[in-house]
Amino acid sequence: MSRFNPLVETLAAPPIPHVFAWGDAYDGRNGPMIDFSQAVPGYPPHPDMLRLLGEYAASRAYTGYGPIEGEDSLRKAYAAHLSETYGLPLAAGNVHVTAGCNQAFICAAMAIAGAGDAVLMTDPYYFNQETTLSMLGIKTRFAACDAANGFLPDVATIAAAITPDVRALALVSPNNPTGAVYPAALLSEIYDLCAARGIWLILDETYRDFRPVGAGRPHDLFGRAGWENTLISLYSFSKSFCIPGHRLGAITAGADVIEQVAKIMDNLQICPPRSAQAAVATALPLLADWRDGNRLEIARRVEALLSTMAGAPAWKVGAVGAYFAFIGHPFEGVPSARVAEKLAKEAGILCLPGSYFGAGQEGYLRFAFANADTQTIGLLRERLNRFAMD
Amino acid sequence: MSRFNPLVETLAAPPIPHVFAWGDAYDGRNGPMIDFSQAVPGYPPHPDMLRLLGEYAASRAYTGYGPIEGEDSLRKAYAAHLSETYGLPLAAGNVHVTAGCNQAFICAAMAIAGAGDAVLMTDPYYFNQETTLSMLGIKTRFAACDAANGFLPDVATIAAAITPDVRALALVSPNNPTGAVYPAALLSEIYDLCAARGIWLILDETYRDFRPVGAGRPHDLFGRAGWENTLISLYSFSKSFCIPGHRLGAITAGADVIEQVAKIMDNLQICPPRSAQAAVATALPLLADWRDGNRLEIARRVEALLSTMAGAPAWKVGAVGAYFAFIGHPFEGVPSARVAEKLAKEAGILCLPGSYFGAGQEGYLRFAFANADTQTIGLLRERLNRFAMD
Repeated sequence: MSRFNPLVETLAAPPIPHVFAWGDAYDGRNGPMIDFSQAVPGYPPHPDMLRLLGEYAASRAYTGYGPIEGEDSLRKAYAAHLSETYGLPLAAGNVHVTAGCNQAFICAAMAIAGAGDAVLMTDPYYFNQETTLSMLGIKTRFAACDAANGFLPDVATIAAAITPDVRALALVSPNNPTGAVYPAALLSEIYDLCAARGIWLILDETYRDFRPVGAGRPHDLFGRAGWENTLISLYSFSKSFCIPGHRLGAITAGADVIEQVAKIMDNLQICPPRSAQAAVATALPLLADWRDGNRLEIARRVEALLSTMAGAPAWKVGAVGAYFAFIGHPFEGVPSARVAEKLAKEAGILCLPGSYFGAGQEGYLRFAFANADTQTIGLLRERLNRFAMD
Repeated sequence: MSRFNPLVETLAAPPIPHVFAWGDAYDGRNGPMIDFSQAVPGYPPHPDMLRLLGEYAASRAYTGYGPIEGEDSLRKAYAAHLSETYGLPLAAGNVHVTAGCNQAFICAAMAIAGAGDAVLMTDPYYFNQETTLSMLGIKTRFAACDAANGFLPDVATIAAAITPDVRALALVSPNNPTGAVYPAALLSEIYDLCAARGIWLILDETYRDFRPVGAGRPHDLFGRAGWENTLISLYSFSKSFCIPGHRLGAITAGADVIEQVAKIMDNLQICPPRSAQAAVATALPLLADWRDGNRLEIARRVEALLSTMAGAPAWKVGAVGAYFAFIGHPFEGVPSARVAEKLAKEAGILCLPGSYFGAGQEGYLRFAFANADTQTIGLLRERLNRFAMD
């Protein structure tokens, strides 16, 4: 009988549908489910965003194949947005549009590593990045992030983990799952290390727009001479515009990287879906104020989370940031999946077990708190305080 | 300095943009360009299709993440369509929606082969399938199709080419680039061979809806006991609905294959773009008559091609079928890319060189004749007869 690729066959099933099934088993005894599972903004897209999506999708202009690298209009609009965000000139030629940030990651990974090479990740890590590398036969190595240091990566730990087969370091900032926002100075040190060791720094900035108000520029790495030989930055339009169902992300990199990614994308998809690109190109400048308002709302949700968690002292906030909190549960020795399953089915709190993000994370749960409004977040305290494992 | 993945770095640049550049250099001396380059229907999408795309894209219902395997509505509608097409019951659980057929192919390939394994293809082949396998480190082996046999694959040739490392045979019927429509009886024999040798048959049926009127069922393979252990069928909604820019394709396979593909797709894209899926689910039954009308129109274009080519006897129609014709040019020993480039720049005929589809195809050109209306196709005769290489 025909066989499957063992790298895929042995891959764990996608975790999110599994967690949804726990949620479906909740009987509602404590009121509505607090859904902290998948990273999806709880508020709706702006009406102008929906109008633009509809208008461009109904247009014949976007029914044919488009440029592999993405619509010129979106590459230009996003380059302008990047130039403002980082205070440095970036060009349309530095942008490759993808169908979401997972696709941006797999393209970046394939561009720089093949089966038998290795990519270094932090631990905890974003699980889809780990499974993406595994299914490609790319080895994964890990640099542990210390809870005592707010789950920020440590430069010496990373340096020690760069074995000769490591082709890149993959970082996520603001971090998924912990929420930790990596300071610009730390990213600068890590960049220097990668450049010195001749490995790529793949920096996933999906949650960039939800950093704290007044946090300054995310980093100054695009200003470094020769950054094109070290840095590949990833982004998602899904969270900022509340449109993950339309699948839009982007890679920002040097022209040589974009050229490699285009070859991969041509095989993967020919071009990203077009009409949504045109809609986001128009929405990027148009909805800047709306996005700033959402950043303030997310900041309020951080405050609401810290406030409610202060009243549930058995549970520890390991880290909290742009979109996520990494919460230490009080049941030492109990697997995090057992805690999360019971929280879903009995307390009506849907979240992801720490074990999904690394073998050493059994003491933690990921709360995608940005999904819920402040009032819903406020319900946590009582539900957590009343919760017990048998 | 950081390095690229050599499997990607050594990959040729995507060929289509290169060919477009030749077209841009045409000065119009013979009248408008006859564009036979990319496989894109020359007629517009149905107005109802555009209306549905617009309506669903403007709906909040499709802004969140959807099921990895695709929208239930599209999986059900397509399963019903398949059941009718093949005269056999196929279920929504046999369908995985993808963002176009290239994505369907890479998912199928990854599900059954990894770096170091091999996939057997026909020669000529569809170039993106070859580059997809190459960039994954999957070896390619080839079974040559004889021009004297209308470029149909030969069972004994295939059997002889199945080395122990071959995990699958990849076929395209109706074929890209030749247009040859593989008879059901031939597909049946090839299926038997694959099943007996324990390898997968990946059958790309992107151009299924453009087979000749009255051609009967494409094949009976879904009726075989245990077909789920051998057959993986691929399809594209792009051509039939004239919406390649919306990127929608599908895999039809057994539940075990769908389960493996879902793990890959979760990493690749999380879910296919949603609103276009909902639109096509509605359009599938609604636009059945319109699609039948297009099939008749394509049949008229086949007649127009054969009629005009009969008047240019130095050029040979090697094969012609659903969407493509594979045309032997009269310049023996001249590389097909040189012929195609001059045809574009001087005769105003844009087509792809045979060499893009296999090293042995220098004597041929691919005409994606379905792109052009019958009147435009009729212009070929004079342009070809007046054309000379220096």
